[in-house]
Amino acid sequence: MATTQSSSIAAAPEFTNSDTRISELLTLMHTIRDLGALGALAAWDQNTALPEGAGEIRGMQMATLQGVLHEHWTDPRLGTLLGELTDVVESADFTDADRGLAREAKRGYDQATKLPKGLVEEMARVEAGSFEAWRRARENNDFASFAPWLSRTVALQREVADRLGYAESRYDALLDLFEPGLTASQVDSLFAGVRDVSLATLKRIQASGNTVDASILEGDYASDKQVALSEKVLRAMGYDFNRGGIAVSPHPFTTEFGSPFDVRVTVHPDQRFLQAAVMAAIHEGGHALYEQGSATALARTPVAGGASMGAHESQSRLWENAIGRSEAFWRGQIHLVRETFPERFGATDAATFVRALNAVKPSLIRIEADEVTYNLHIIIRFELEKALVNGEVNIETLPSLWNAKYKEYLGIEPERDAEGILQDIHWTSGFGYFPTYTLGNLYAAQIYVALRRSFPDFDERLAAGDSAFVLGWLRERMYQYGAIYLPAKLVEMVTGEPPNPAYFAEYLTSKFAGVYGL
Amino acid sequence: MATTQSSSIAAAPEFTNSDTRISELLTLMHTIRDLGALGALAAWDQNTALPEGAGEIRGMQMATLQGVLHEHWTDPRLGTLLGELTDVVESADFTDADRGLAREAKRGYDQATKLPKGLVEEMARVEAGSFEAWRRARENNDFASFAPWLSRTVALQREVADRLGYAESRYDALLDLFEPGLTASQVDSLFAGVRDVSLATLKRIQASGNTVDASILEGDYASDKQVALSEKVLRAMGYDFNRGGIAVSPHPFTTEFGSPFDVRVTVHPDQRFLQAAVMAAIHEGGHALYEQGSATALARTPVAGGASMGAHESQSRLWENAIGRSEAFWRGQIHLVRETFPERFGATDAATFVRALNAVKPSLIRIEADEVTYNLHIIIRFELEKALVNGEVNIETLPSLWNAKYKEYLGIEPERDAEGILQDIHWTSGFGYFPTYTLGNLYAAQIYVALRRSFPDFDERLAAGDSAFVLGWLRERMYQYGAIYLPAKLVEMVTGEPPNPAYFAEYLTSKFAGVYGL
Repeated sequence: MATTQSSSIAAAPEFTNSDTRISELLTLMHTIRDLGALGALAAWDQNTALPEGAGEIRGMQMATLQGVLHEHWTDPRLGTLLGELTDVVESADFTDADRGLAREAKRGYDQATKLPKGLVEEMARVEAGSFEAWRRARENNDFASFAPWLSRTVALQREVADRLGYAESRYDALLDLFEPGLTASQVDSLFAGVRDVSLATLKRIQASGNTVDASILEGDYASDKQVALSEKVLRAMGYDFNRGGIAVSPHPFTTEFGSPFDVRVTVHPDQRFLQAAVMAAIHEGGHALYEQGSATALARTPVAGGASMGAHESQSRLWENAIGRSEAFWRGQIHLVRETFPERFGATDAATFVRALNAVKPSLIRIEADEVTYNLHIIIRFELEKALVNGEVNIETLPSLWNAKYKEYLGIEPERDAEGILQDIHWTSGFGYFPTYTLGNLYAAQIYVALRRSFPDFDERLAAGDSAFVLGWLRERMYQYGAIYLPAKLVEMVTGEPPNPAYFAEYLTSKFAGVYGL
Repeated sequence: MATTQSSSIAAAPEFTNSDTRISELLTLMHTIRDLGALGALAAWDQNTALPEGAGEIRGMQMATLQGVLHEHWTDPRLGTLLGELTDVVESADFTDADRGLAREAKRGYDQATKLPKGLVEEMARVEAGSFEAWRRARENNDFASFAPWLSRTVALQREVADRLGYAESRYDALLDLFEPGLTASQVDSLFAGVRDVSLATLKRIQASGNTVDASILEGDYASDKQVALSEKVLRAMGYDFNRGGIAVSPHPFTTEFGSPFDVRVTVHPDQRFLQAAVMAAIHEGGHALYEQGSATALARTPVAGGASMGAHESQSRLWENAIGRSEAFWRGQIHLVRETFPERFGATDAATFVRALNAVKPSLIRIEADEVTYNLHIIIRFELEKALVNGEVNIETLPSLWNAKYKEYLGIEPERDAEGILQDIHWTSGFGYFPTYTLGNLYAAQIYVALRRSFPDFDERLAAGDSAFVLGWLRERMYQYGAIYLPAKLVEMVTGEPPNPAYFAEYLTSKFAGVYGL
């Protein structure tokens, strides 16, 4: 890479192979991660192919797997090994990869030993049942049929929080599962700033009277063509189909069955809106590039993959928004859209297309939201799920609370729960994930600034159809390290500065001042 | 069912729920079967979706799973329980399902305790590598690149046989894994009769000078339409898509991820031959109906599914040949073919179509073979794999031996190994399976005679588009019992007579006397 500034940064992480404790720890972790990969495959299958009549038995199978995984995570031999490594691993004889491995193994061990096997199995059963109930409820716009499942999930999540322990609120314990160390009060304070800049930007846009015409994205776009276009865009980003694949599911997601070797994405085309599938593909592609970028030495261990969900979302949002909603990127890729839908985009230039992609309009569906309102969708979910976990709200009143918050923040209300509270898959498994999306947006803005700083010709290269240099930079500085470093440390390594939410406020304000000529 | 003759036959099998030993045994078996289902899912994924670059890590994951399964199968608590149940389970306090469960659990326990974990993991790794090597070798017509993998498989299978033990020959130990108690010398003697009637029938047909025009099946049949037709035919047979699904893979197969709730099939369309996909779909559909027919009480235990591979193949071959190559069946279903390929079959009647399906012509590909020559394909494989296991042949000479045997039995020789020795997936995992196809043909003929005897209006009902009565009869007498009874006992229960190969000889002779007017 022409942009390598320091050879130490570029050194691929490795485990110490001369220490028998690390070797034994790796063997234990390989088993756990391999079994986890089979569980992820079963979940992927559940989302893409599972016959309706097999929902119940799949739930039992998942519960069994969780039970077996739990036995492995609570293996006393693992506890002994981790005890032996605790201080030793800090010495110079060990690598950062060893330290990350020991830390993540300890995290898994601690969590598992605090949660009894029966609870873990029950959670898997409820998750499988809840998923099926959610899928049907969403189809039939019938929140009431999903409510009992949500209620069981709330009870289980409260029990999990109580068993894991927390300083201030139960919700902290759940947050920590996705973003180590993050607390609800930290989120409250970060989100206050995000809410302010989002609402202020939205208000300025609405007050300006300036508009963006996004009608070109609306129409009748055949689903199979959207999938084909998504595939082309993923290729253009550098997603490796030799280590992945794309499928259709009710809700787009990324999953891995052994990073970096098998990382797959799904999309969910909406015939009416071109951007639904393609922007989700770029979003999921960002997750997937991160997973595919882990050093191969980390495979089959808990440090393969992302440093945290916040770090993960930083990559999905960086690719989706900072890059995937930039004119430079689409100057290089608009030909893919033209090839796929020539009748509609034959005469459309990148600037027009990207302006449409950046139209700001309060909407009901989170995954279709623009960058200005996106975090408001997250804040609504955060407020509601925090209240659920803290027992401050009745399930029955949730849809009306949801709708009221949409009215308050976005000025609009869903008419159907399918477009409201039933839109997301997340609550079929638990709580604490949503805030990481916004955290990811904060990290993404900071990383994007550092990225541009490294390449004075950033826009020109993107516009020439090259995005390999972006992927190369991210891989070298971030992706290859997997979860070796905690997210705050990683952000500092990548950007030269600890996480700083000011970058996001500045990014949002200046980008949309440009788009809307404010 | 109007045809129910005895209410005792129709009683759905159940386990005793008052005995704590049975309950504990069931709990142990549920874990094993659930984990096995995840392994089957991983294999299905490997055949239908796995990215090329993930072959190696998938092999490691499968090896890990096999190791974990091995730990569960060798659990000392399982040994103790089985010891406690050994004689007790024969008493009237226990059900046939309990006895089948204890027998199959004992079988699994005995096999596992004889095979060390390292060997089992190695077998999984070699199978995954061998599968990838086979897929590429077949694509590139390159047996030499597959030979080292086959050689490793032979060595492992010999070790397995030595550890499992056998009375006469190593091959017996492998046969027993698929067909309990079957020996190579029994197969030798059964196959002598099958070879005689097959060669005699073939000779009579060839000597008669009579021919069957099968050209209507050859042409250019779009793969996606063949898959759609396969799906329709499966529905017509009574295959339940609510508990299954269809996909495309390089070699058609049936698999289950929790019988009877999730049983899926694959096909492999060949654009040049209409029958390739549709007849394979009926074949796999027969397997799938058997799995979908297990009593729900048997789910997640080793007695869900088929009694043996021979019993399983009896159902695939019964549906494929006795029913799926009968005029009566196609009089009821020819409209599906006409709808799918109207330009070609708009004016074709069932008699013409079925005559074409029953054309006898020595060919190179087993799964496309007619009923007269099919078993000769099996006999060739049996002779070769028996020699391999017994160390009587060099891997390098296999392709020429294969070709020479085709010349000897069928009078034709493959020009490319891809159409010869590389055509089947089976040798990527081991030996001993092939003979069960022919055994299945023998059982199938006997069951078919019993089935027709039960329904004087058999042909009329099939011709009217009804096949539910066939499925109902088979479910009631056979499918619901899963693997509770050993195959010979089961055949006797279904037909009123122990297995008798004479039915097959009579079936083959009389059917093809009819087709060829001999």
